[in-house]
Amino acid sequence: MRKVTFGGGNSLDNFIARKDHAGDWLLWDKEVQSVTAEFWKTIDTVVMGRKTYEVALRNGMASSAGVKNYVFSRTMKESPDKEVEIIREDAAEFVRKLKTEEGKGICVMGGGELAHSLFEAGLIDEVGCNIHPVLLGQGIPLFHEMSQQIDLELLECKTFKNGCVLVTYRVKH
Amino acid sequence: MRKVTFGGGNSLDNFIARKDHAGDWLLWDKEVQSVTAEFWKTIDTVVMGRKTYEVALRNGMASSAGVKNYVFSRTMKESPDKEVEIIREDAAEFVRKLKTEEGKGICVMGGGELAHSLFEAGLIDEVGCNIHPVLLGQGIPLFHEMSQQIDLELLECKTFKNGCVLVTYRVKH
Repeated sequence: MRKVTFGGGNSLDNFIARKDHAGDWLLWDKEVQSVTAEFWKTIDTVVMGRKTYEVALRNGMASSAGVKNYVFSRTMKESPDKEVEIIREDAAEFVRKLKTEEGKGICVMGGGELAHSLFEAGLIDEVGCNIHPVLLGQGIPLFHEMSQQIDLELLECKTFKNGCVLVTYRVKH
Repeated sequence: MRKVTFGGGNSLDNFIARKDHAGDWLLWDKEVQSVTAEFWKTIDTVVMGRKTYEVALRNGMASSAGVKNYVFSRTMKESPDKEVEIIREDAAEFVRKLKTEEGKGICVMGGGELAHSLFEAGLIDEVGCNIHPVLLGQGIPLFHEMSQQIDLELLECKTFKNGCVLVTYRVKH
């Protein structure tokens, strides 16, 4: 079964972007670059919601070579990019099928709306947060409200020179 | 100038308690106990809002020997406990005065409503979070929305056997 990972760079107060989706506060250096590169080696599939995809498109980061991208949307007609497939069916059902197929890991990108429904369906296996040394005060939350509690097991905690703390957890199913 | 510290045990999704104020999910063991005891040696004053005080009263944890407690409330008439003083004036002005007095550190207890106004007034010097390996899904947030961004400097990151990650930050004023 393929592993589904959710996470990203977040602020200590649980935001993944400013309200206008800006990520200007994200710290990027050789350490983060190296950890990110290692992670990308373990996946071959990215799933995201429409809003995240639109932000990625605006930032010219909508697809990566060798990675299959699925965007969940009921309103988008067709994909502007051959690396990106628009999925109209239920996200949880689609990801449940994806997990049983052959392949490397699956990464859930973006703010927490898609992750929320995948958490509720018990489909996320790992959570990784690169906690930045900042309180943004407001923004787009990484974790949204959920109807259930999700217990985690700490797998790794790594401190970067720039003050970020990378924590990785296994979801206890 | 006395140091003002805010924080507590929180979930990875930024909650300090369940919606009904329950803290049954908080992990407590010898490591946490030892770090907590060390912290209490550095303070002699606790400030909190009325709601936090009412929860503390219900749990029989409203005051500790040798610690001066101030509760901010415009509605409470008098304190039921001689260790606890009710403060009717503006919390930020009161804490600003407290900081200039002789004494040890000051701890801001509870959910983030009081902390929010003290952050906005630039009165909090350190933030300490004991991040628990859990997504509560809903509850009372540790950090509330703020009008400004607060930059932090990571001072320490410590991992506990129970999967908690204790992070301590200096607020960059």
